[in-house]
Amino acid sequence: MPAGEFELIRRHFTGRGSVRDDVRLSVGDDAAVVAPRAGAELVLALDTIVAGVHFPADTSGRFVGHRALAVNLSDLAAMGAEPAWALLGLTLPAADEAWLGEFATGFEELARRFGVALVGGDIARGPLAATVTVGGFVPPGKALTRSGARAGDELWVSGTPGDAGAGLAILQGGIAAGGATREELLRRFLLPEPRVDLGQALRGIASACIDISDGLAGDLEKLCAASGIGARLDCRRLPRSAQLLEAAGEAGSMRHALTGGDDYELLFTVPAAARPGVEGLARLAPVRLIGEITAEPAVQLLGSDLKRDLVHGFDHFGN
Amino acid sequence: MPAGEFELIRRHFTGRGSVRDDVRLSVGDDAAVVAPRAGAELVLALDTIVAGVHFPADTSGRFVGHRALAVNLSDLAAMGAEPAWALLGLTLPAADEAWLGEFATGFEELARRFGVALVGGDIARGPLAATVTVGGFVPPGKALTRSGARAGDELWVSGTPGDAGAGLAILQGGIAAGGATREELLRRFLLPEPRVDLGQALRGIASACIDISDGLAGDLEKLCAASGIGARLDCRRLPRSAQLLEAAGEAGSMRHALTGGDDYELLFTVPAAARPGVEGLARLAPVRLIGEITAEPAVQLLGSDLKRDLVHGFDHFGN
Repeated sequence: MPAGEFELIRRHFTGRGSVRDDVRLSVGDDAAVVAPRAGAELVLALDTIVAGVHFPADTSGRFVGHRALAVNLSDLAAMGAEPAWALLGLTLPAADEAWLGEFATGFEELARRFGVALVGGDIARGPLAATVTVGGFVPPGKALTRSGARAGDELWVSGTPGDAGAGLAILQGGIAAGGATREELLRRFLLPEPRVDLGQALRGIASACIDISDGLAGDLEKLCAASGIGARLDCRRLPRSAQLLEAAGEAGSMRHALTGGDDYELLFTVPAAARPGVEGLARLAPVRLIGEITAEPAVQLLGSDLKRDLVHGFDHFGN
Repeated sequence: MPAGEFELIRRHFTGRGSVRDDVRLSVGDDAAVVAPRAGAELVLALDTIVAGVHFPADTSGRFVGHRALAVNLSDLAAMGAEPAWALLGLTLPAADEAWLGEFATGFEELARRFGVALVGGDIARGPLAATVTVGGFVPPGKALTRSGARAGDELWVSGTPGDAGAGLAILQGGIAAGGATREELLRRFLLPEPRVDLGQALRGIASACIDISDGLAGDLEKLCAASGIGARLDCRRLPRSAQLLEAAGEAGSMRHALTGGDDYELLFTVPAAARPGVEGLARLAPVRLIGEITAEPAVQLLGSDLKRDLVHGFDHFGN
């Protein structure tokens, strides 16, 4: 007899993640009870990943569990928040306990690294998808947003965008790569690293921030729209990994760096006055100056042959 | 050209629900920022509903939007919490704007009634499903749980369980009913009313509480297991609506009352000393004494011919 929903939750999702003394009641009741940090604001994010849309349907449970949490931690990172708790809603076609165990492992490894307790869970039958909610803290009024960029600010990015998109292209047969190059690009897609520490360090330095989950160029457009400004992006300054260049070539790597999704790097703007603070960030993540914010509300790409209409970000429904 | 995800969220989910002065940043950034109530604990629930599993796939968007929030508010009610904020993850096969508009309306009507602000949203392509997270407040240490029932406590239930299950059976052709009876039972399934006010009033009165989303008998078993006690349920005392009796007859109505899911009524236990407090609850919801808590860890059904193995609650995977 297959295990019931209640039993599956008990087996796979009870006591997962970090032990936190601000958790009053965890998985197993109608809801969780937690004690918010006194004086802090609470940052709440919710993201869903769907098999066949956000990851290949045959992806190992471990990578799906990691991704389900990582995409949400990346949202907290983009706000400069310190993660605390997560709730998980998982739908899957059958009670595959081996897969569930892998999922729980992937989720937990990442949760523990960032001090996150899994406090609530819901498992239901349905097409494979995972929705996670995370909660975290920022000092009052200190959350980073998309809307604070001003003309004259510098434009910065972390890491080497495009790697994850190239990893997905390898999985889908669109790019051929072997050996260590293949492994590294797959790792970048399958085990994205949310920039949690960098995000918190950017509080008081960045004027605006967004995570580039949908592609650098498209997410830059969102930041510009939210801030009511434009940007001049110097594509020649875009950091590209040796692996991406090897697998995709000069033009292909540029396209991946500008439009590849799933990077979960941070794109942020820095006022001239805050520039000294950026130097200290290098110990947390590689960061690179890639352009500047303009008063004219448009995104200009310098040093790239890519047509503007090619660089819209990943969008589940639109263009 | 179809609208993109970003535009769909802007059109249908921005500014939905109540306006709350504890919302610092709402839908439209990487995450939401809210200010928890000083000195209160935070109750967090997450529930997913999937087309074809939790509701018929052709259900109107208005009812799906209502249900997605209602099932979560019911979890807060079962904890005695005061609702505050919601986040929504919606996956749907295509950008059907008419359906989305109906969904948003159903969600919003309920959100406004209970003072809930929709602060975050994610729309993705995928099989039709909605995951909602809600957050709310309880005074420290005052959350109701499943685990506080003690031998000798009274067992109470709100409303008339079974109506929603009968409404679903009507939709699926398992029960024939017409006129006002049909309408009322359908309404009970399609527009479940979370017992938010009753739940808060039960703080300091109930020793344990659970919402009967999976069927009264099965959820009673969960409460008993969590509390380490048993219960004697007098089925002759079960409140059954005139509509349920008319549509399902004596035996059928008993089966629906014991095993029908989706009622979102509250099942709670009351120590003898707190009995006077129950009298005051009637102004919030009809409540009925239906049994007692026993030291022996088993659920006994008195006055019913239903076999125990028929009364397990709704379970997505198991028995």
